[in-house]
Amino acid sequence: MKVLRKLYFCTSNKGKLSEYREILGKLGVRVSMARVKVKEVQSESLEEVATEKAREAFEKVKKPVFVEDAGLFVDALKGFPGVYSSYVMKTIGNDGLLKLMEGVKNRRACFKAVIAFADEDGRVRVFEGKCEGSIANEKKGSEGFGFDPIFIPRGYGKTFAEDLRLKNEVSHRRKAIEKFVSFLRKSYLLKGAVSKI
Amino acid sequence: MKVLRKLYFCTSNKGKLSEYREILGKLGVRVSMARVKVKEVQSESLEEVATEKAREAFEKVKKPVFVEDAGLFVDALKGFPGVYSSYVMKTIGNDGLLKLMEGVKNRRACFKAVIAFADEDGRVRVFEGKCEGSIANEKKGSEGFGFDPIFIPRGYGKTFAEDLRLKNEVSHRRKAIEKFVSFLRKSYLLKGAVSKI
Repeated sequence: MKVLRKLYFCTSNKGKLSEYREILGKLGVRVSMARVKVKEVQSESLEEVATEKAREAFEKVKKPVFVEDAGLFVDALKGFPGVYSSYVMKTIGNDGLLKLMEGVKNRRACFKAVIAFADEDGRVRVFEGKCEGSIANEKKGSEGFGFDPIFIPRGYGKTFAEDLRLKNEVSHRRKAIEKFVSFLRKSYLLKGAVSKI
Repeated sequence: MKVLRKLYFCTSNKGKLSEYREILGKLGVRVSMARVKVKEVQSESLEEVATEKAREAFEKVKKPVFVEDAGLFVDALKGFPGVYSSYVMKTIGNDGLLKLMEGVKNRRACFKAVIAFADEDGRVRVFEGKCEGSIANEKKGSEGFGFDPIFIPRGYGKTFAEDLRLKNEVSHRRKAIEKFVSFLRKSYLLKGAVSKI
């Protein structure tokens, strides 16, 4: 079994970087920001976008590296805004999405997160997390970011932005991270060992 | 001056292919479909997306090749749907865009087209065409495709879909094509010669 001491994370999001530092630090793995520019492929599959990014990042970093991508997929809008969630957030935002959903009965939506990890040989593995839920009728709450104020996870009456603790427990990102950590623990000799992340 | 007899066009749109065959045929240039897969970079600039595609297509075809990209940029929506126009068309469509514009006074919008041409040395040049206009209050007309039923070019009272002849005269694509043709006539020895396209 190989020893894993360090991982590169290809992101420009410092919030996510500290989060991974905390989680993976418990496994004895240091996380460094991979300061490389990678292209985002236009594809409607989150998995494809993340896989290509991880592959490109590995070609530049030549060390184990991972990327994370997420998106909100609304059933009644044929999956919109999907992989283009961050662009849609920047342009029409939550207000735009609520407007598109005015009078729409089927409010089902799903948040998805994908972590793509390129190992020391450049082989890419993908870890996906999903959180089913629905689009609220109005914005509620001020925590979190992005579409959090209008997304209600299934089985709960609050939006992600109203209850960040709930979000951290049931979120798509949480599930993807759990799968990733479980893979790392199975595949590598780690200095740290935690029973729960 | 170099002779130009043949160009590759990287597209999957057969309608556009025949259009270019007709226009460039008059200059004595044959147009073949470049049957290569190129990635679409996620970028908010049409120019960047097209340039990268032309570069990638040239790497595969190794012959002069061009690509064409277009998008609708709505002022009040911060440029949305922009480079993601075809995805937005497929998901929320004209009805979605009209819904987003309900009650919005500033209806200014602009159609942009970019042709990126990689010459025999792989050097990429970009030709841009713009058509200013506004978003209609409702869909009108059945000609054309995409956002044509809701786009009214400035100075006219009809949508592109109501008057295809008008569209062909004033459109963004038309302007980009004119610039491209004028460049080809200046830069190459062509068998055919037409005064107007």
